[in-house]
Amino acid sequence: MSIYKPVITPESRLTSLGFELPDAPDAVSNYAPLVQSGSIVYTSGQLPWIDGELKYGGQLGQGGERSDEDGYQACRLSALNAVAQLKKHLGELSRVKQIVRVEGVLNVKCDSRWTGQPKALDGASDLINAVFGEQGRHSRMVNSNSAMPLDCTSLIYIYAEVE
Amino acid sequence: MSIYKPVITPESRLTSLGFELPDAPDAVSNYAPLVQSGSIVYTSGQLPWIDGELKYGGQLGQGGERSDEDGYQACRLSALNAVAQLKKHLGELSRVKQIVRVEGVLNVKCDSRWTGQPKALDGASDLINAVFGEQGRHSRMVNSNSAMPLDCTSLIYIYAEVE
Amino acid sequence: MSIYKPVITPESRLTSLGFELPDAPDAVSNYAPLVQSGSIVYTSGQLPWIDGELKYGGQLGQGGERSDEDGYQACRLSALNAVAQLKKHLGELSRVKQIVRVEGVLNVKCDSRWTGQPKALDGASDLINAVFGEQGRHSRMVNSNSAMPLDCTSLIYIYAEVE
Repeated sequence: MSIYKPVITPESRLTSLGFELPDAPDAVSNYAPLVQSGSIVYTSGQLPWIDGELKYGGQLGQGGERSDEDGYQACRLSALNAVAQLKKHLGELSRVKQIVRVEGVLNVKCDSRWTGQPKALDGASDLINAVFGEQGRHSRMVNSNSAMPLDCTSLIYIYAEVE
Repeated sequence: MSIYKPVITPESRLTSLGFELPDAPDAVSNYAPLVQSGSIVYTSGQLPWIDGELKYGGQLGQGGERSDEDGYQACRLSALNAVAQLKKHLGELSRVKQIVRVEGVLNVKCDSRWTGQPKALDGASDLINAVFGEQGRHSRMVNSNSAMPLDCTSLIYIYAEVE
Repeated sequence: MSIYKPVITPESRLTSLGFELPDAPDAVSNYAPLVQSGSIVYTSGQLPWIDGELKYGGQLGQGGERSDEDGYQACRLSALNAVAQLKKHLGELSRVKQIVRVEGVLNVKCDSRWTGQPKALDGASDLINAVFGEQGRHSRMVNSNSAMPLDCTSLIYIYAEVE
């Protein structure tokens, strides 16, 4: 009988969920993708892209180009890039003690009165909760803008407390 | 002659002002209403509701459904819910050392060019200053969005330094 | 031969760049322009004004009153006011250990689908990088709103880690 017990890490949970971490993207301009101050790491906005190719552009809400489901997927991919930034900075994601705050900015048609923000942001929250477990329990902020850099559908920011 | 001196607490100031703390609402989706990291507590967005009933929905600015006075009242009620979150987390509000930051997101008609944000946000700031006194002295951020979760008029977020 | 070596400070860099720090403006309402909690200083939103005179008002994006270059200049002036707040609070800007986060909120025409945010925000980032050098390396957040206090073109917020 084997006494081998696999160590469950955020990385192994990502793999189990079928996700592969993309390369951590560079910032799109004259700033840093991530800064640590004391035990808190602050990421800059992460776009829903892979290898520089924007997977989700355009707007949510009536008259927009994107469905509510697209909003969920865009937030999930943006969050995956935020996790990639943490991985690059920390080496091991198990060094994350707590995801403190997740901020989402969504691209929403300006006169649509759309109210799908919570479900769209769950694309980020569900991923973070699944990957980090109890350490993923986070507060959340949402903004809806009608103009976005690169016309991207979502930007996700993370504050993380780290070892 | 009595030497009894009443202890002035944030809770007693709330009572003096005629406010009753609502129950701290749950988050509207897959995240936490509040997270503490080190000595800082970050709340998620608080809506202007009581017992799940939205008291202030709709937009500010010309063409919107809400007056500037409604905006002030909405921010005050959102802030009261943020204080309720702190109370639930801390037990005693006197454990707040400093309200560090108040963030307000307002629901504003998209082409109104409305400029009433500072007065509306004062609904939150006035309450916090009155309840916490010198410990209530806070920095402030404002955003105006033309789409909001539940079409609520205001969302208020607090960063608080706690004992 | 002189062994005099000039000490390079953020203040001397500002002078070399031809900037003069304006007086740190008061908050426009019932809150503080800046709050320190632990080693982090959080500024409130800084407008693009000098001595109470708004230098950049109006909107960016097609149909707006302001050019992309105006957006860059507005962000630079807003950031200069944020630096003035730090100077007033700290006495010496060399007490800044790290500019942790720069948040910019831009006034953007609501249906313009404008995508000039990164270049506009560089007005703030370029100044901060030039003044603080390695200590200026910051994460960044951007929001585009179609209504702003005083109809200003930009608001810049800074989180700074200080000695």
